[in-house]
Amino acid sequence: MSETATDLDAEDRRGETGTSLDEDDRMKPEFVAAVIDRVEAGDTEGARALVAPLHPADLADLFELAPSDQRRPLATALAEMLDGDVLAEMNDWVREELIDALQPHEVAELATHLDTDDAVAIIEDMEEDDQRAVLRAMEPDDRAAIEEALSFPEESAGRLMQRDLIAVPEHMTVGGVLDYLRYHEDLTTDFWEIFVVDAGHHPVGTCKLSWILRTPREVAVADVMAREQTLIPVDMDQEEVALRFQKYALISAAVVDQAGRLVGMITVDDIVHIIQEEAGEDILRLSGAGDGDINEPILTTVRTRLTWLIINLGTAAISASVVGLFQGTISQLVVLAVLMPIVSAMGGNAGTQTMAVSVRALALNQLPPSNTRRIIFREFRIAVMNGLCLGLLLGVTVYLIYGMASLGVVICLSMIINNLIAGLAGVLVPVSLDKAGADPAVSSAVFVTTATDVMGFFSFLGLAALWGLHS
Amino acid sequence: MSETATDLDAEDRRGETGTSLDEDDRMKPEFVAAVIDRVEAGDTEGARALVAPLHPADLADLFELAPSDQRRPLATALAEMLDGDVLAEMNDWVREELIDALQPHEVAELATHLDTDDAVAIIEDMEEDDQRAVLRAMEPDDRAAIEEALSFPEESAGRLMQRDLIAVPEHMTVGGVLDYLRYHEDLTTDFWEIFVVDAGHHPVGTCKLSWILRTPREVAVADVMAREQTLIPVDMDQEEVALRFQKYALISAAVVDQAGRLVGMITVDDIVHIIQEEAGEDILRLSGAGDGDINEPILTTVRTRLTWLIINLGTAAISASVVGLFQGTISQLVVLAVLMPIVSAMGGNAGTQTMAVSVRALALNQLPPSNTRRIIFREFRIAVMNGLCLGLLLGVTVYLIYGMASLGVVICLSMIINNLIAGLAGVLVPVSLDKAGADPAVSSAVFVTTATDVMGFFSFLGLAALWGLHS
Repeated sequence: MSETATDLDAEDRRGETGTSLDEDDRMKPEFVAAVIDRVEAGDTEGARALVAPLHPADLADLFELAPSDQRRPLATALAEMLDGDVLAEMNDWVREELIDALQPHEVAELATHLDTDDAVAIIEDMEEDDQRAVLRAMEPDDRAAIEEALSFPEESAGRLMQRDLIAVPEHMTVGGVLDYLRYHEDLTTDFWEIFVVDAGHHPVGTCKLSWILRTPREVAVADVMAREQTLIPVDMDQEEVALRFQKYALISAAVVDQAGRLVGMITVDDIVHIIQEEAGEDILRLSGAGDGDINEPILTTVRTRLTWLIINLGTAAISASVVGLFQGTISQLVVLAVLMPIVSAMGGNAGTQTMAVSVRALALNQLPPSNTRRIIFREFRIAVMNGLCLGLLLGVTVYLIYGMASLGVVICLSMIINNLIAGLAGVLVPVSLDKAGADPAVSSAVFVTTATDVMGFFSFLGLAALWGLHS
Repeated sequence: MSETATDLDAEDRRGETGTSLDEDDRMKPEFVAAVIDRVEAGDTEGARALVAPLHPADLADLFELAPSDQRRPLATALAEMLDGDVLAEMNDWVREELIDALQPHEVAELATHLDTDDAVAIIEDMEEDDQRAVLRAMEPDDRAAIEEALSFPEESAGRLMQRDLIAVPEHMTVGGVLDYLRYHEDLTTDFWEIFVVDAGHHPVGTCKLSWILRTPREVAVADVMAREQTLIPVDMDQEEVALRFQKYALISAAVVDQAGRLVGMITVDDIVHIIQEEAGEDILRLSGAGDGDINEPILTTVRTRLTWLIINLGTAAISASVVGLFQGTISQLVVLAVLMPIVSAMGGNAGTQTMAVSVRALALNQLPPSNTRRIIFREFRIAVMNGLCLGLLLGVTVYLIYGMASLGVVICLSMIINNLIAGLAGVLVPVSLDKAGADPAVSSAVFVTTATDVMGFFSFLGLAALWGLHS
């Protein structure tokens, strides 16, 4: 699975993209249209000539931007350019659509030219039968590497890592390393550090290539390497891997099995995608938009979003039933129905602010147990200050408009109460979910907005009923 | 500003951290408490011994996790360990607090040992007077580099880049490069690629270090380098830089000035922080939580959040005034007040889903103008399907509970209408804000939820009034 040639080709192909991309590096609509026009007119050569200078990432974009009914003919016309690098860059859903149209031996042929991690990314989403057919069509070595990768849990270091890496024994000199690299043509070229291992293949140190380049030939690698390294266990979750890369500013890291033996390497370019995904995922999860992928089949999207909306319908019904308890109070003073959505909406807004901050801090490992009490106290103080300001502002306004001091006091008090509920729920809900092992981004919003809606209606209408407000 | 020694030290210092970090790589509360106890007891030596094995990133965490009134004494006790690497890893607010306590010449001393980009990050947040004092205390070379960096706009490539890089002429051989690197001790060790430049110092190609290592000495670098490279203009926004790094899987990239001359280099480890920040920022901005930094001074947080809440209070008042139009209708049938929050809340939920997807797609450059119409049509179909399902479900339930078919029909129709409003506003608002040059994450939520609240109340109560519903 060496890819010396592929990598260099990719660099060459990028070429002059000035005509296809706008100044923000996005593909121009006219360019997409021009390619599709040629494909439709049967001018395959013309279409190929247009896309020839594109970088694989841009060629992948072209497919994503083409209308879905045009992707199949486009793929047929550009088949020979559609190599593994392009597929690896492509959106999951768009790729799946294309892969489905290929024969297993064609997929196997593509996967053979990829790094293990990219090949796994393509194969792991296939149906089991198709997966087996593809694996059968591969060379035994490649197949074994992919099967091993697939044996690790999804989204774990084992799936992310590549097996092609450079490992040398401690006693080797810098000169020995240089000769080893120069005279073994089948070695990977895709590495930024070399790993130094002991006789049992346990990593004992890491050398940046720049250190090798700057050291005389006769020095032993053991004398230049950094002994302290961040080792990644093969079953570590990819989000955790990404946090380590970020925290320690890593370029590559050794992956070790349970026995501490070096089994693979993860490089930062694969991590960059994960950081982007994981950090962006929370916003979509908090809103119940699932993966939020604009290329997802529409029925999948509807199913994900509808599930979430139906759960919310249930919680909205709970809040409504609280209002239902006070129908008598409302019929005494209809303006309560006018004002009550303000109290619940403001609680929802304040709760969402606190919740977003907490979810983010949890994702960044900034909210360890030692810090939780401090953050709860911090949010409590913020809620008191915000509640007082908003309560007074709203209370005075309501008094001025409706001329009822009692109504002003009631809405002021209920705003303060609901801000406190919002602040506490905004921290406690995500932290408790995290402690219980659930993803706080997925379900915090239901609990927090239910709390602020219920308490908003209950405190406002309840205080009004207690006070005996009527018109 | 060379940092050969610093870098190697940093690796050495990481050491045995098994006792200070939990299995999730987070600092244990007992460890923080133990260090603080020793500082309080005056056992400076003991405190230093405890933190000696920590990586700079973990030492920075220690300061963030310490209660804010303990940070100053902690800094005094650990002063000699508090070097630039630690400061560069520290949260902005915590660092600012510590830097404020230092003399300008101490800050200058720290900054001298850092890469330009890290030094700039520390100095750019200082008051102008302090900044000048620090710059005056620096060596002329370092000062010039920092002053030049500060002349570029905030969050631009010019602020991110480092000036220490390896650039060689085209005609140089691989052997020549090796000798140059080995015999010039003052060169940086922090590089992953070398840049090949012409006589005018314009970059003409890039060589991965692995290619240099694998090529015989007599080959010219011009024959191994990749001619196609992604060049970063010095005034490019950091978010755009991050997208390029991600799209083209870059490890480092050359930064060029307006004349196309090589002026600096950006490496991926600096980009990883930005990707994390930019992707995570949107969730905080959408919820109006500002930077959402848990270390921000509390009054700054209150100011940011309160501003947002007051804007929302205004929009909540607009929605309430819509309810106010229908007080007569509500007094005819109080159950309308019970049900109306369901319609507005469900519209808000559906709108937030669509908005989150759109904001994310815009941030990832997946929503170029050529794609907008398709996405609007996609969201329209999703809204029709969701609206029909939810409307029927709610309509039938309401009919069963209240025995009024007309009320069931009204709430069903208003749910469908509000889902359509939510779907359209969820795409059109962020896309329009983006087109107008505003950050869609910052202000989309106000417009979208105002639209769904107003239309939720208006369609439900309006249809009820038209139908003449009463008890």
